[in-house]
Amino acid sequence: MTELGIVKRNINRADRTTVDRLAGHGVSTVHEAMGRTGLMKPYMRPIYSGAQVSGTAVTVLLHPGDNWMMHVVAEQIQPGDIVVAAITAECTDGYFGDLLATSFKARGAKALIIDAGVRDVKTLSEMGFPVWSKCISAKGTVKATLGSVNIPIVCAGAMVEPGDAVVADDDGVVVVPAALVHKTAEAAAAREANEEKKRATLAAGTLGLDLYQMREPLARAGLRYID
Amino acid sequence: MTELGIVKRNINRADRTTVDRLAGHGVSTVHEAMGRTGLMKPYMRPIYSGAQVSGTAVTVLLHPGDNWMMHVVAEQIQPGDIVVAAITAECTDGYFGDLLATSFKARGAKALIIDAGVRDVKTLSEMGFPVWSKCISAKGTVKATLGSVNIPIVCAGAMVEPGDAVVADDDGVVVVPAALVHKTAEAAAAREANEEKKRATLAAGTLGLDLYQMREPLARAGLRYID
Amino acid sequence: MTELGIVKRNINRADRTTVDRLAGHGVSTVHEAMGRTGLMKPYMRPIYSGAQVSGTAVTVLLHPGDNWMMHVVAEQIQPGDIVVAAITAECTDGYFGDLLATSFKARGAKALIIDAGVRDVKTLSEMGFPVWSKCISAKGTVKATLGSVNIPIVCAGAMVEPGDAVVADDDGVVVVPAALVHKTAEAAAAREANEEKKRATLAAGTLGLDLYQMREPLARAGLRYID
Amino acid sequence: MTELGIVKRNINRADRTTVDRLAGHGVSTVHEAMGRTGLMKPYMRPIYSGAQVSGTAVTVLLHPGDNWMMHVVAEQIQPGDIVVAAITAECTDGYFGDLLATSFKARGAKALIIDAGVRDVKTLSEMGFPVWSKCISAKGTVKATLGSVNIPIVCAGAMVEPGDAVVADDDGVVVVPAALVHKTAEAAAAREANEEKKRATLAAGTLGLDLYQMREPLARAGLRYID
Amino acid sequence: MTELGIVKRNINRADRTTVDRLAGHGVSTVHEAMGRTGLMKPYMRPIYSGAQVSGTAVTVLLHPGDNWMMHVVAEQIQPGDIVVAAITAECTDGYFGDLLATSFKARGAKALIIDAGVRDVKTLSEMGFPVWSKCISAKGTVKATLGSVNIPIVCAGAMVEPGDAVVADDDGVVVVPAALVHKTAEAAAAREANEEKKRATLAAGTLGLDLYQMREPLARAGLRYID
Amino acid sequence: MTELGIVKRNINRADRTTVDRLAGHGVSTVHEAMGRTGLMKPYMRPIYSGAQVSGTAVTVLLHPGDNWMMHVVAEQIQPGDIVVAAITAECTDGYFGDLLATSFKARGAKALIIDAGVRDVKTLSEMGFPVWSKCISAKGTVKATLGSVNIPIVCAGAMVEPGDAVVADDDGVVVVPAALVHKTAEAAAAREANEEKKRATLAAGTLGLDLYQMREPLARAGLRYID
Repeated sequence: MTELGIVKRNINRADRTTVDRLAGHGVSTVHEAMGRTGLMKPYMRPIYSGAQVSGTAVTVLLHPGDNWMMHVVAEQIQPGDIVVAAITAECTDGYFGDLLATSFKARGAKALIIDAGVRDVKTLSEMGFPVWSKCISAKGTVKATLGSVNIPIVCAGAMVEPGDAVVADDDGVVVVPAALVHKTAEAAAAREANEEKKRATLAAGTLGLDLYQMREPLARAGLRYID
Repeated sequence: MTELGIVKRNINRADRTTVDRLAGHGVSTVHEAMGRTGLMKPYMRPIYSGAQVSGTAVTVLLHPGDNWMMHVVAEQIQPGDIVVAAITAECTDGYFGDLLATSFKARGAKALIIDAGVRDVKTLSEMGFPVWSKCISAKGTVKATLGSVNIPIVCAGAMVEPGDAVVADDDGVVVVPAALVHKTAEAAAAREANEEKKRATLAAGTLGLDLYQMREPLARAGLRYID
Repeated sequence: MTELGIVKRNINRADRTTVDRLAGHGVSTVHEAMGRTGLMKPYMRPIYSGAQVSGTAVTVLLHPGDNWMMHVVAEQIQPGDIVVAAITAECTDGYFGDLLATSFKARGAKALIIDAGVRDVKTLSEMGFPVWSKCISAKGTVKATLGSVNIPIVCAGAMVEPGDAVVADDDGVVVVPAALVHKTAEAAAAREANEEKKRATLAAGTLGLDLYQMREPLARAGLRYID
Repeated sequence: MTELGIVKRNINRADRTTVDRLAGHGVSTVHEAMGRTGLMKPYMRPIYSGAQVSGTAVTVLLHPGDNWMMHVVAEQIQPGDIVVAAITAECTDGYFGDLLATSFKARGAKALIIDAGVRDVKTLSEMGFPVWSKCISAKGTVKATLGSVNIPIVCAGAMVEPGDAVVADDDGVVVVPAALVHKTAEAAAAREANEEKKRATLAAGTLGLDLYQMREPLARAGLRYID
Repeated sequence: MTELGIVKRNINRADRTTVDRLAGHGVSTVHEAMGRTGLMKPYMRPIYSGAQVSGTAVTVLLHPGDNWMMHVVAEQIQPGDIVVAAITAECTDGYFGDLLATSFKARGAKALIIDAGVRDVKTLSEMGFPVWSKCISAKGTVKATLGSVNIPIVCAGAMVEPGDAVVADDDGVVVVPAALVHKTAEAAAAREANEEKKRATLAAGTLGLDLYQMREPLARAGLRYID
Repeated sequence: MTELGIVKRNINRADRTTVDRLAGHGVSTVHEAMGRTGLMKPYMRPIYSGAQVSGTAVTVLLHPGDNWMMHVVAEQIQPGDIVVAAITAECTDGYFGDLLATSFKARGAKALIIDAGVRDVKTLSEMGFPVWSKCISAKGTVKATLGSVNIPIVCAGAMVEPGDAVVADDDGVVVVPAALVHKTAEAAAAREANEEKKRATLAAGTLGLDLYQMREPLARAGLRYID
């Protein structure tokens, strides 16, 4: 359950070296390598395009219209972490701007993933601090109510445990449970090697129908060609 | 009706030379030239801005979460075609990525229009393969169920017959029935010539109220000026 | 009430010099300086990023699918104005394109804020005429029904009186009542000066928890740290 | 294409007797009997629950905020028809209320299907005139712009030709092309007969896994049971 | 502007007797009688159908996730009032349940209109306390931040001044400025009397085309009948 | 992680007697008793009003457009269970109708909670089998791809472990972790007893301001009364 008013200080972060490699594979490949699981909903979009990051999750649960816990989570950030923020109810307020980004960056955070709004997006882009969010909103928040830090949360439809790996790029955001990071990184690398060959074959004009030997199963399923 | 499990190989494509000219006029002008019809819904957005294309429609109907027919439609692509994809129910999955784009491009496709999600959008942008879609999503699909190729479909609220002209740019996507391509291209050209003159007049400070002689009909409709 | 068929010619515009200064502070700061009020809803997005403007509101109320009053409002524009457009019901049509933008620009308008769609966005971007809108749509409109110009309107959830200051940037759009422009500009400037110092402190690694002295109130609220 | 300003008087209505039988089968069964096609999007909801109708489509295309053509279509209604209304762009206005319902009913219409809003819903419910719509809205409309009657339209994502059969109940709305009405009615009846037996078997405790012999294909697909 | 932390005790309520008469005319008629203005957006729906109320507005502005001011507004309710609640940002939380309804009812409130969520809807229905809201949600709120009572607000897109008349039924919610209550009530009554005659004529089979003499203007607009 | 192709047969169900008591307290009270956590998003609505159930969760994860696993989960149902169904991506298809409901009921299921669509809702209402769903849709599904049964899932934003208690009524759906069922039931009962007294006091005209002693903290927070 999501207990409120708790900050967990010690979490087991997935292996940093492996986590760092995941960004290079990209969200789509990592998601496929996990058996097509772990994705956040597609409404989560980057505030600027081209960023591609991976890191270990530090989680925070906040109340609608209240960003007090963003300051609490800042202290728990270690270099290489990505802050993942969920709200106890749907909210579009701007929980995060350039001041908090300055602080997060000073702590070594690589990105913020938040199921709500952010602001100061022009400055954030100039700072090169990437954020994936539900929306952009200048709406300010109060600091009045406790949430929690480093508890399991649901962010944009995905379960996130503190310490899990998070990968984010222009395709969205995927969460890799800490225990599956090695296996996933290997599967992603294998998948990518395999894709290189396929790409060349397809570029040369071979059809996927032939490359993947789909003609026979399609016919068996009843596909009919007519003129 | 939308019969499933069918691939129609021979379709009557609108005249290529005329279709190619439509891109230059842009979606808004073509839509006006058709009497304000043929538009897809405004949620259809390009994955990168600035692309401006026109081509002949090759259509495909797919199931939620299943992109098998994307490989089937690839074989039906001829140079200058645009693939238009509809789903039998609302779906945001990522039906299309860089491998399929490589294949479509090798076949001569100019773009994809899809009422669902796409992925690998950074690579697609680098490849210069434009896509207009409902969303961006890394969510992978299965290959288990038959749809159809080159049947009439409804894509994002617009009827599309195989062979129709499709025009897409930053303003959205418009469909021109094959039989109306010549008439529409002429009307669009005439409209554009006309707009050039208007633009100069308006830039010089003349009001639309005077240019279009609206003062009298506005007064007749009851418009009152107060101080 | 929103009376229809009225054009108010004389409105009291907020002080131009002060209004012009607001753009530099940005939407988020101005909104905070007003006590966190005045924002339009976050679905209002710029058609291109990076624009940052402030101006005095000239308002227009239109009918769904009818942009006739856009020509009427053009005549009421004075240099430094921003046109703010509301629709009597939800509508996504493209009320505004490059011809109207040419006319608005010739009259001295700095931007358009519209709770509906716009089109010709590529040309508008090339012209450098910024628009914040609900969506982008090529859908054309008719010219058949009267609305009003320079009456109080509700645009994207915010009340706008003619003559109010409007500030818009990548974070959204905020409305400052004419009577509050001076006070708000001063509060925004003070806030900004204050933020500069905070930014340096946070960049140096000081936590917001200490900078804002939050540890004690958080403990009092019951925050517990666990390992 | 959707030509505007046209009223087609003579349309080929699907066979009345067969169409009338479709209501009894219900939308879900008819949709399955057609091979899972023909459905409108699920946002189309009845204004009161329990109504179950089928009829022949008389179509009308209207402009946003303008219900003039509702009076034009009224004249084309024959007893047993269902009016199907589409708008050229997304609109939530209240196009239809108790006066129009009185007129439609006097002409013999069985229902209205409209991809927009309706009003006077309490009175419509008391009159027993069923409507399936996108929303309920008191927003009034003008009478200023021409649309068309009895042309092919797209309503809530479904293609509708004048004369097609339309079936609507608490599950939604499905369109049966006139040419397929007989075949569909037979398939629906067969399906229903078949379902009666299944229902009894399932009620007695037999699992679908056994009734439909799914255990073997599930195992082949790789399903694993763990404890 | 929306100043926070203020409770205005003395407001000018529209004339009670006239306000009470508005409920009988219904929202659609009142909205038409005002020249098609004053409506809230159609997402505002009653928690149970059949209620039809009118009253004088007592307004309250609240923060996301915080219902503290609901207790403050309760004290300002006079018999015959309707509480109209807006939130400073979009929120779906359940701000109001059976305890507050008990208190509001004891004070003489006739209904609640809220641009957010409510809960205990089964009990509210049994109590016969009608609510029009954006959604139903069990999500609890905190009591930590000040809003204001009896200031002008924007609720679901409509401007509401304290003391204005509010009318709500199954068609939605409409706001009548206090100064227009008499004129609107008269116009609504006239409209209704007029509608009675029209209804009888239409029920007898006369078409709106003839009743409203539309054939000539339709022909002039270019309507063509084809076979 | 959400592993696919797995059916877990043995799960630890929360204590039946206690779970059964939760329905009587209702979703809002149970959610408050848990410290305001555990709610599904408010788009989850009952297909008919008035149902109030609690049971132990049997979970199922399905693919978009594919309901094969609904037959697999049926076998895992024990009397008193509630089936909770999530989809790997957003989908509105009708996964469940009267035949499956007959089977679920025969197995002893008390309800279905599904983050997708259902159909045959009229029959389901007549059968008295309650469903909370995202929408109602007649859209049929295929049976081609494996999901999993009795794994942890995220349904409508809430984490659900197999065996957890689920409570659903007109206010929505809340999940109580199995380990917290006793504590929650006690807290809910205490809360309810407490509310009875409050209700009487408020009904007698005492204000919440006085009952909850809010006047002093409101004044301290800066609330000002003006005339």
